[in-house]
Amino acid sequence: MLPPLNWAHRAQALLNQKTKPLGSLGVLESIAVRLAEIQESTQLDVGHKRILVFAGSHGIADEQVSAYPTAVTAQMVLNFLSGGAAINVFCRQFEIELTVVDVGVDTDWGDGVVSHPLFAWRPVRRGTRNFAVESAMTSEEFEKAMAAGREQVVLASEAQVKLLGLGEMGIGNSTSASALLCALLRLNPVSVVGSGTGVEGPQLQKKIEVVNRALAFYEKRGSGARFWLESVGGFEMVAMVGAVLEAAGRKLPVVIDGFIATAAAAAAFEIDPAVRKHCIFSHRSRERGHRLVLEMLGVHPLLDFEMALGEGTGSALAMPMIESAARILNEMATFTSANVSQIQPNGE
Amino acid sequence: MLPPLNWAHRAQALLNQKTKPLGSLGVLESIAVRLAEIQESTQLDVGHKRILVFAGSHGIADEQVSAYPTAVTAQMVLNFLSGGAAINVFCRQFEIELTVVDVGVDTDWGDGVVSHPLFAWRPVRRGTRNFAVESAMTSEEFEKAMAAGREQVVLASEAQVKLLGLGEMGIGNSTSASALLCALLRLNPVSVVGSGTGVEGPQLQKKIEVVNRALAFYEKRGSGARFWLESVGGFEMVAMVGAVLEAAGRKLPVVIDGFIATAAAAAAFEIDPAVRKHCIFSHRSRERGHRLVLEMLGVHPLLDFEMALGEGTGSALAMPMIESAARILNEMATFTSANVSQIQPNGE
Repeated sequence: MLPPLNWAHRAQALLNQKTKPLGSLGVLESIAVRLAEIQESTQLDVGHKRILVFAGSHGIADEQVSAYPTAVTAQMVLNFLSGGAAINVFCRQFEIELTVVDVGVDTDWGDGVVSHPLFAWRPVRRGTRNFAVESAMTSEEFEKAMAAGREQVVLASEAQVKLLGLGEMGIGNSTSASALLCALLRLNPVSVVGSGTGVEGPQLQKKIEVVNRALAFYEKRGSGARFWLESVGGFEMVAMVGAVLEAAGRKLPVVIDGFIATAAAAAAFEIDPAVRKHCIFSHRSRERGHRLVLEMLGVHPLLDFEMALGEGTGSALAMPMIESAARILNEMATFTSANVSQIQPNGE
Repeated sequence: MLPPLNWAHRAQALLNQKTKPLGSLGVLESIAVRLAEIQESTQLDVGHKRILVFAGSHGIADEQVSAYPTAVTAQMVLNFLSGGAAINVFCRQFEIELTVVDVGVDTDWGDGVVSHPLFAWRPVRRGTRNFAVESAMTSEEFEKAMAAGREQVVLASEAQVKLLGLGEMGIGNSTSASALLCALLRLNPVSVVGSGTGVEGPQLQKKIEVVNRALAFYEKRGSGARFWLESVGGFEMVAMVGAVLEAAGRKLPVVIDGFIATAAAAAAFEIDPAVRKHCIFSHRSRERGHRLVLEMLGVHPLLDFEMALGEGTGSALAMPMIESAARILNEMATFTSANVSQIQPNGE
């Protein structure tokens, strides 16, 4: 039997025939090769794009670890639905579909929200428990959040979405994501815990202390990605893990947003290392630990705009660049087709 | 009399009211502020985009400093006109107009080229002279190339273009740009001269030697941006200098491509330091000296994709990101308009 086709080699060979010096499109060439591997084709298709923004409330916010009141999680969901947030601006610009998934926001929605075409109502619970006091979620709640993430990918896949992006909203979730990343990658909270939406000084010290105490408490009680997600995670992070796992199974490239989405990706990598190939990291955020975490994961994000907003804003900005990569392979002329002379041996 | 309005402060004050943590859109906020200063408005308008690709042949190519034959300059112009090059792919994707300006390509064009709607025929001469032997151009030729660059900006401005990008094509021009940058910024060629389209080993050593000898020869004969452009520059570089100077006079933001366009920008900065404000640097290329040169100029490019292609490809990829910056200011809701709670004093 012949060996299976190596899509990466085929894609790179085609790129090398395009009218440009070898490798001169740099990172975009690497992305095109990755897409060819994922889509098992050299005719790439990433035109139909969708971003899933998972929103959830966090019990840990009771510890005053955020600069904003917890009500902002629900308020920002309403802002997404009325089109006023940064993610809406970028989705309009780049023709990206948007679905906002409530996986556990602590609020009472009106009928207009629940029936809104951009909204999916899949609440696991009205927010996680305060992990400074008890585990953030039960095993059943974990399953429910995972299923909510997977469901959205199934729907996207059935709608012929070809490029998926992740994002999140949840006041308190940078504390939760920091704890998760420190546990999974064995990092010191001092190097990872950052200002999130804007905490500084004594409040930042308190945030570090909250993470330190949680790590010391839970590490005696279990291990592994699922254990840590249940102990210190958020419903939106678990849903993103489910989304990554489902996307990989459906040959869908998935764009990872910033610090919080990276925590979900790190957990997904531990659950199934094979999903790494499908994840394209969009940007390096200004959140303290993000650079270190990305290095430890061995991944290279596309953009470095010193952003720290979440909502999928990094995913949205990276999507057109990923489409550019695909279009190089699909659309550029070759040296032969364009009658352009190739490189001269020995510089003659 | 009241002091003039400070557009930067007004733009930042508006950004601070948008529904996001302060400064959380990072570099995009800085770009939005820059655009407000340039356009003297907080209602930004960068929708209508155009890239000018200036093409010229180089006498220095006689010294075998390039990996490709000189005929490739004309061949690539034809590729641009038939839509097969990387710059065409990105211009189609991002709805950017393209004009290819022949300021001195050593070829005989057919009628179909000269009358092509994307083509402007403004040849100064059939290529520069070999600067290893004599000055690249005369003072009259310099003026003609400058005027060709200015003319295209006037045409763009009259066509209501709101965001201009620069690019170039010219086999041999990384040698010319290296010499220019070393002269203007007093750098050692060993730190600046790179592989261009792909020279290595002894050929790269020869390229460094060519630049070293030219610097030693011309530095005894004159100084300043114009002198060095005439001595070691290219028609496409001089045209880009003209374009930058004219764009600044017309309040047009201008996107600088990679290594070659950076050399033109460095010359323009020396001629008129006030044009700095109007130049947005698109990307850090993989060309050896680009990082150092960007640092010395004190500028921070948007993208870092390890590209080295020219043609305006970096400008094209940066343009949608610049538009994103403008749209944040134009389109995002404020905390008040979206009923979102603001940051809490003392983290309460």
